[in-house]
Amino acid sequence: MDIYEESLDLHKKNGGKIEVIAKVALENKKDLSLAYSPGVAAVSRAISEDKSVARELTIKKNTVAIVSDGSAILGLGNLGPYAALPVMEGKAALFKHFADVDAFPLCIDTQEVDEIVDFVKKVAPTFGGINLEDISAPRCFEVEQRLMEELDIPVMHDDQHGTAVVVLAGLINALKLRGSEKKDIKVVVNGVGAAGVAITKILLDWGVTNIVLCDSQGIICHERTGLNDTKVKLMKVTNGGGVCGMLRDALEDTDVFIGVSVANVLKPEALQIMNEKPIIFALANPEPEIMPDDAKDAGAFVVATGRSDFPNQVNNVLAFPGIFRGALDNGVIQFKDEMFVDAAKAIAQCVENPTVDMVIPDPFDERVPKAVAQVIK
Amino acid sequence: MDIYEESLDLHKKNGGKIEVIAKVALENKKDLSLAYSPGVAAVSRAISEDKSVARELTIKKNTVAIVSDGSAILGLGNLGPYAALPVMEGKAALFKHFADVDAFPLCIDTQEVDEIVDFVKKVAPTFGGINLEDISAPRCFEVEQRLMEELDIPVMHDDQHGTAVVVLAGLINALKLRGSEKKDIKVVVNGVGAAGVAITKILLDWGVTNIVLCDSQGIICHERTGLNDTKVKLMKVTNGGGVCGMLRDALEDTDVFIGVSVANVLKPEALQIMNEKPIIFALANPEPEIMPDDAKDAGAFVVATGRSDFPNQVNNVLAFPGIFRGALDNGVIQFKDEMFVDAAKAIAQCVENPTVDMVIPDPFDERVPKAVAQVIK
Repeated sequence: MDIYEESLDLHKKNGGKIEVIAKVALENKKDLSLAYSPGVAAVSRAISEDKSVARELTIKKNTVAIVSDGSAILGLGNLGPYAALPVMEGKAALFKHFADVDAFPLCIDTQEVDEIVDFVKKVAPTFGGINLEDISAPRCFEVEQRLMEELDIPVMHDDQHGTAVVVLAGLINALKLRGSEKKDIKVVVNGVGAAGVAITKILLDWGVTNIVLCDSQGIICHERTGLNDTKVKLMKVTNGGGVCGMLRDALEDTDVFIGVSVANVLKPEALQIMNEKPIIFALANPEPEIMPDDAKDAGAFVVATGRSDFPNQVNNVLAFPGIFRGALDNGVIQFKDEMFVDAAKAIAQCVENPTVDMVIPDPFDERVPKAVAQVIK
Repeated sequence: MDIYEESLDLHKKNGGKIEVIAKVALENKKDLSLAYSPGVAAVSRAISEDKSVARELTIKKNTVAIVSDGSAILGLGNLGPYAALPVMEGKAALFKHFADVDAFPLCIDTQEVDEIVDFVKKVAPTFGGINLEDISAPRCFEVEQRLMEELDIPVMHDDQHGTAVVVLAGLINALKLRGSEKKDIKVVVNGVGAAGVAITKILLDWGVTNIVLCDSQGIICHERTGLNDTKVKLMKVTNGGGVCGMLRDALEDTDVFIGVSVANVLKPEALQIMNEKPIIFALANPEPEIMPDDAKDAGAFVVATGRSDFPNQVNNVLAFPGIFRGALDNGVIQFKDEMFVDAAKAIAQCVENPTVDMVIPDPFDERVPKAVAQVIK
């Protein structure tokens, strides 16, 4: 039985991976009168006089909504809200397990930006934070941006920032091992979807200056037509040399390849035109842009993937639980770019003695969410 | 310290009365690959091929949304979604405790009928049922009706049907004790909000034929002007004698008074114009229409209230957990009027030997939710 059959079996047996339980006793009439009517009236009254105390007296204190429209589920594509539900449940389970955050999935039956924004704004009173998930690019950028501006609770699209934080964490350690400085390196990011955009931004925020972006049509450069707004904006802050062409053209003199694209697009021979000891993040799932062994054989210095069966797994679970834990504990009402950079540094530091096979902590390293939470403030 | 101060303390200490926990192990990479990526992809694919299996493989199987706009919170009025949250959390805790239903509160920032309907429709894929709560009349009728028609999961406004079911349960036993037949009695329902309307409907469905409704302006009769649609409709199936006037005029020759109105509107002397051994349901909270001792002194045969400190408490917790338990277990996609009547009969039967002080089961009687669940099919 493979992992997929086994997972189906687990879901058939459980019928849902999370449950909602009471934290208060409900054994007798006194308990009921305290947790519910009539005692709870005092709590409602207190909140109606000052809604900010909802953050102390209700689940708003520790609860995050995981909102998805099912438009970009894992690597599966647009399968809609029903198919998104088991993924979001899994995520909620991880939130609780890794950072004691109560998270609840809301898979919604619309893929219109205005309607998603409107939905989240309506439900926001209930929650202390919003984790957007598996919403396809470029809609995800506008949804996140508008919600960040309009809500008084923190909003994060995890496919963007969760991934970007862990990539930067791994890159920090990989560059240290390689003896390279961020200001000296050239990075190629292949794939300009949610993750690619956020990775590019966090690298710029951290201080990498020479980045070239590629999508399936080639390098994002001045000769390209029909680029979406996001790509046009990024073109202005990347590709300083104005190079045009395909991925292979971008790779010349490159120190770091970061793929958030599709399987097998990085051929082993392409590593020969990169600088010596190239760092390869091949994050396409489940099949990476290049298999780690092939990359190593072709001279790669460090290889990271999205897979748990190879070293250096870029796993968002290293980031999102601690990020929201910190936001809830420290009263953060809006995530800032520098918080994500700080989170990456904190994750990197959890690896005390980095090696080429250990630039990223183990996803079960309990110090990680705590370290991340401390810097989200 | 009174119950209100004690409740505030409990909420300060807990900061939320429910939590979301994992039902699956997450101790190692294998666990993660089954509950989350990559294994969960098989579950998403299965659901994308046949969305009905979401009812087997996800939280949709056992999870109910408690949706409130905060417009009619307990007896406190329109305090909005933030103030509604502790009440809905309490309700979620009761759902789990009494019927192992996972329930999650969604307190939303709109009080427009169209927007509430739209919100619930968007979030419906996530849930196996919708419990509407503390939405003021008459908007609640349209919200419920439209959602029932448009969704493929059961929808119930608990302030209507939960209360109505428990009232009918108590009435069944009270009439048995009094030796009265449903076809022979006259009932006055005072208060034509959410609960009053649903009580009237369930009495008609059960077979009571002589009902007179009163609101704060007096009897609902042909002389009244400016009645809302709901009251106009109910006028056509009640008050067969066409009596007009005030509550006192309605009470003549009446066997049963059901108040879902405000404190102290039923004067002890008014019981003198009712038939002998009147049955009094004085359900205004926290102060009933008449205090039980005063009603007894004035000749009442059975008195029920909403309070836990007197006999015969009409407590919705006897109804809603079992109703949704049954709906989820038995694949009910729309509640029908006869289900509510059956639920009331099932609750009534849980009192093996009714007495005037025990026409309604104790809210902690564990047989009740099971008995109710069995008839919701």
